[in-house]
Amino acid sequence: MKVNVGVSNRHVHLNNEDYKLLFGDTPLTKRNDLTQPGTFASELVVTITGPKRSIENVRVLGPNRSYTQVEVSRTDSYTLGINPPVRNSGDLADAVEITITGPLGSIKRNAAIIASRHIHVDKNIIKEHNLEGIDKVSVKIGGEKGGIIDNVYLKETEEAYFELHLDTDDANAHLLNQGDEVEIII
Amino acid sequence: MKVNVGVSNRHVHLNNEDYKLLFGDTPLTKRNDLTQPGTFASELVVTITGPKRSIENVRVLGPNRSYTQVEVSRTDSYTLGINPPVRNSGDLADAVEITITGPLGSIKRNAAIIASRHIHVDKNIIKEHNLEGIDKVSVKIGGEKGGIIDNVYLKETEEAYFELHLDTDDANAHLLNQGDEVEIII
Repeated sequence: MKVNVGVSNRHVHLNNEDYKLLFGDTPLTKRNDLTQPGTFASELVVTITGPKRSIENVRVLGPNRSYTQVEVSRTDSYTLGINPPVRNSGDLADAVEITITGPLGSIKRNAAIIASRHIHVDKNIIKEHNLEGIDKVSVKIGGEKGGIIDNVYLKETEEAYFELHLDTDDANAHLLNQGDEVEIII
Repeated sequence: MKVNVGVSNRHVHLNNEDYKLLFGDTPLTKRNDLTQPGTFASELVVTITGPKRSIENVRVLGPNRSYTQVEVSRTDSYTLGINPPVRNSGDLADAVEITITGPLGSIKRNAAIIASRHIHVDKNIIKEHNLEGIDKVSVKIGGEKGGIIDNVYLKETEEAYFELHLDTDDANAHLLNQGDEVEIII
């Protein structure tokens, strides 16, 4: 079955406490909606810093979560000089230390991961596409730099937009753009 | 069968005429040997510039070739603001325009490509691994961001070191490093 691609550039999720430390009473105003219902790119950006270098203008996504998480690509990790694990969002057990700087100051958190490849689903999508009991799939990608990517996790939320989320390394390696169609292999 | 990975960062090959325009009588001195016999990374770097931005410190490889070619990744192409085709080395029919700047000046050439995934072979390697009559293969990559990459061309030269060359996008997307071992699928 087909699924559309969503490309995730590096970004930051903050918990309320860390948000307050970085932005104080500045509201988390929406710049634009993201495809997953209720989520948005905010007007706010931070700088992230590792032992080697910084990356500026990293978008803060909303709404705030119960945990602070910095999602980077492997390419970013070389720039920063860190070695983050590949993890599903929210799994921060061995996330690596990174400094996040906003207008009010800097915080250092064990928060950096490379996000696992994943497909957003909800109960209706699972039923409609016969995905019951499946936790990960592979995806076939066409084109001159195509192939198959493994370990693509199904991420179930209350309400989802059916979409494959790839980081910029996966998208660029396979010449994929936002909205491209690829094939799920079960 | 197994093959080792070589990761190619962005780099430049120059013909003698363009070399002269950029570096004059400065010799193309070796910094270090590359794995393919007779090839080397030189001490020299250039800046490459597209409509959007420049990338500095791009390594000049040696020896000079009969053509000038700039090999970048898709990620680089977004930085530069260009849209180069995926091509085998030396196939510059629709390579895109890029400016190359050295100590003596700048040249503008239709020279930018994204290099095809390829495996270096010679007649002995082809015989040893039963690769006669095969022009491209796929490669299986293990690990958390593994999968299969298609359209991996066999590139035959007089004398070769048996190695899979990937650009930094392919390597980083699959968490591969120089010297990692992967599996050829025919």
